[in-house]
Order: sequence, then C-alpha cells, then structure tokens
Amino acid sequence: MHFTSEQRLDDGVLEREFLLGETPGTLWTSGSAPAPLILMAHNNGLPKREPRLVARARHSAARGYAVAAIDTAGCGDRPRSSADEQIRAELRRAMRAGEPVDEIFESFIGPLVEKAVPEWRTTLDALLSLPETGGPVGYQGWTALGIRLAAAEPRIAAAVLFAGGYVPRAVREQAGQITVPLLLLLQWDDEGNPRQRALDLFDAFGTEEKTLHANLGGHTGTPWFETEDGERFFDRHLR
Amino acid sequence: MHFTSEQRLDDGVLEREFLLGETPGTLWTSGSAPAPLILMAHNNGLPKREPRLVARARHSAARGYAVAAIDTAGCGDRPRSSADEQIRAELRRAMRAGEPVDEIFESFIGPLVEKAVPEWRTTLDALLSLPETGGPVGYQGWTALGIRLAAAEPRIAAAVLFAGGYVPRAVREQAGQITVPLLLLLQWDDEGNPRQRALDLFDAFGTEEKTLHANLGGHTGTPWFETEDGERFFDRHLR
Repeated sequence: MHFTSEQRLDDGVLEREFLLGETPGTLWTSGSAPAPLILMAHNNGLPKREPRLVARARHSAARGYAVAAIDTAGCGDRPRSSADEQIRAELRRAMRAGEPVDEIFESFIGPLVEKAVPEWRTTLDALLSLPETGGPVGYQGWTALGIRLAAAEPRIAAAVLFAGGYVPRAVREQAGQITVPLLLLLQWDDEGNPRQRALDLFDAFGTEEKTLHANLGGHTGTPWFETEDGERFFDRHLR
Repeated sequence: MHFTSEQRLDDGVLEREFLLGETPGTLWTSGSAPAPLILMAHNNGLPKREPRLVARARHSAARGYAVAAIDTAGCGDRPRSSADEQIRAELRRAMRAGEPVDEIFESFIGPLVEKAVPEWRTTLDALLSLPETGGPVGYQGWTALGIRLAAAEPRIAAAVLFAGGYVPRAVREQAGQITVPLLLLLQWDDEGNPRQRALDLFDAFGTEEKTLHANLGGHTGTPWFETEDGERFFDRHLR
C-alpha cells in the first residue's frame, strides 16, 4: 500500500489517496493516535469520490474515526469489462421497457459483490497495519457487500447498511449468519427497491441487536442526521 | 396549578408534584431559564410514576428540557369507574380465552383518549404560564393520545410516539392530519401489537418529516439509546 497524494482539508481532516495493487483508495483521518476504522462502501459501484460518501467520510473522520473507501473491480473509476458494459446496457434497456430486472440484477450484482470481497479484505489487512488505525472495525454502505463481508470477516464488529440496492439471493440467505450489531437505513419511498424486501431483510438478520431507521423520500434522500445517528451507533460499538 | 412537593434529585433535576383541579402531575426541570417543554404520556393508563417514564423524564430534564407527566382520568393512580373496571375485567377474560380483543380495546381506549385530551390541554396552558417553560412543545409517549393532541393542539411542534398500544379507528383516521415532525418507535416483536399495523400507521402520517426506529424485542424492551435519539430529535425541532 502506498500513498499517492495527501491533502489537509479545512475541517482538519487529512485526506490521502492510496494504491494497493490495482485497488485505488482514500483514507480520511484526523489524528495520529490509533482510531477505530470505518470501511465505507458505496452501493452498486458508485465511485469513492461520490460527494455524499465523501461528506459522510469527512464528518466521521473529524469525529475521530479513520475512514476508508476503495473502488473495487468494475466499480467507480475502475475499468469495466465488455461483459459488464453489455449487462449494464441490457439493464437500462429492460428498465426503459418496464420489464422485470431482478434476474439481470442477479447476474450483474452477484459477481460484483464476489469480486469486491477479497479486495476489501486485502485493503483491511493493509489499513490495520497503519499506526493511525486500531481496534474494532465498522462497515458502512452497500448492503449486499456488507452482508458478505461481515459473514466472512470476524474483524467487522458493527455495520450500518443502506437498504435499497439489489441483494443477490445467495447473499440474502446469509443474513441469518450476521450476528454483529446492525443499523439498517431504509428510504421509505425508494423507487424500484421494494420496501417489503428491506423489511424482510431486517427481519432475517441473525443479530440480537439490530435497529431499523426508516425515513421518507427516495433512494438518495437519506437525511443528514442519519450520518450522525450512524456515528453514535459506531460510538456505542467500536469505542 | 399548585405545587404540593418538591425534591432535588442527585442528577441536579428538580422534581415537583403538582395538582391542577383533579389532575395530579409531575414536572421535572434543571434550571430557571425558560426551557422547551416535553409532555410525556404513558400508553393506556400506566402511572406517571412508572420507573421507565421517570428515567426518561429525568434524563431529558438534565439535558435542559422541562418535562411534565400527568395522570388523566381513569389512568395511573386516578380512581377508575366501575364501568372501567368491568371493561378491564372483560379484556383480561378475552385475552386469557384467546378471543379477539380489538372491539374491547376500541370501546375502552377510545373514551380514555377522549377524556385525556382536554386534561392535557389545560395542563399545557398552566405549564406554559410558568417562568421555567417557553418555546415550542414536544410530545412523547402514548401514540393514540399523541395523534389526537397533535391534531387539536397547534402548540405541539414535534412528537415521539411509542407504537404498540391500541389506536382507536377514529384516531387512526386522523393520522393524515398530523404535519409536525414525528419519530415513531416500534418494538419489532411487540406481543399482541401487530407490526404491520404500526408500519401502516407510519405510512399514514401526513407529515413530510417522519422517521421510524424499529428495534428487536417486546413491548417494554425499547433500548435506552432511543431515549437519547428522541432527545436529539427534539433538539432539532424544539431548539
């Protein structure tokens, strides 16, 4: 892992770009003492430079967390295979035509998640070797990846999941294995993401300590106060 | 309104008992400057001295709110009419026999709510005339009463409602009229209080700014951190 650039932001947060093999990442920190680490992963391949993710990451870093985001294979600014491009085109066509898209999502999101898991675990190894990080690890963001990662990775101690993206069937079936504390965020009017499916997923998680926060509005309308609620959730479980 | 006793508690909160006509109440404050007022009302007639209510009230008072609770007619330590006693006995019998209880609840809770509303409004007048209170008013607790009160009372600016108690049909139909910010707390495994009914109620509220917090566990299992989440909700809307 090597840092390729760094920038001190006006909130005192240090933002560093890094590269780990082919994986580009960003690390936000606000001090030199070992801080609990939050892995921040966007739904369905949005880039790590996406402004809402960056705003949350900086806020949590200013609160004393080390926060990291990466672009995994096929996500964010990483090159896409022609197979990926083809399936995305098919998805757009089916959505325009009003056809059911579950099977397309299944064949698209399934492999995306499977490829992301080992990259995140390698990144976690590297991040935890830094002097700026220590202690238990939190995960925030993409639900499907969060389930797979929390099931595979005992170092993840708590997770904030954004309901809404497509969760492949094989991943949904793992929900019962998740026993770490969870906060699931649901946008009540999320277009194209059935509310009942999110409620069923909440019900299926195996953990004893799970909380659902539902707010009015569409997919990208999560209110800002949920960022702070998520931080207090991590304060309870990572500190 | 006259105060009948007062006690300085070890958290610095001043707890005063008062009497307003036949209505006994408790007021918790922690300073002399005008503080935003929270009305705290228990579900279905539990007493204002109930330990979980008192713990929440003291915590919010220590945070700088004036908090008040009363026992309305037929609730808490107030005398019950023989008609009330009869319907409660019938309710217990029906529950033991596993019979449907919706109609019994309807005829029992409906009048209880209707009698509580004017008592709370009179109490609100008296409380807001005190130098220790000022500014917008929050409501916390009993959902059915909260809906009726928020629909009738423009001084209520935000409400935290504990889903779970029976909400009479006429009150449910008023949910669409509620336009103040709401936080609805749902216990996911609340025995005898259908989850779907609470989700439908959340959906029905007319406000643009509503949040649902669901936690695992039964009726009385609301986690303590929801007290603090509720206070932060009030901080956003009453300060």
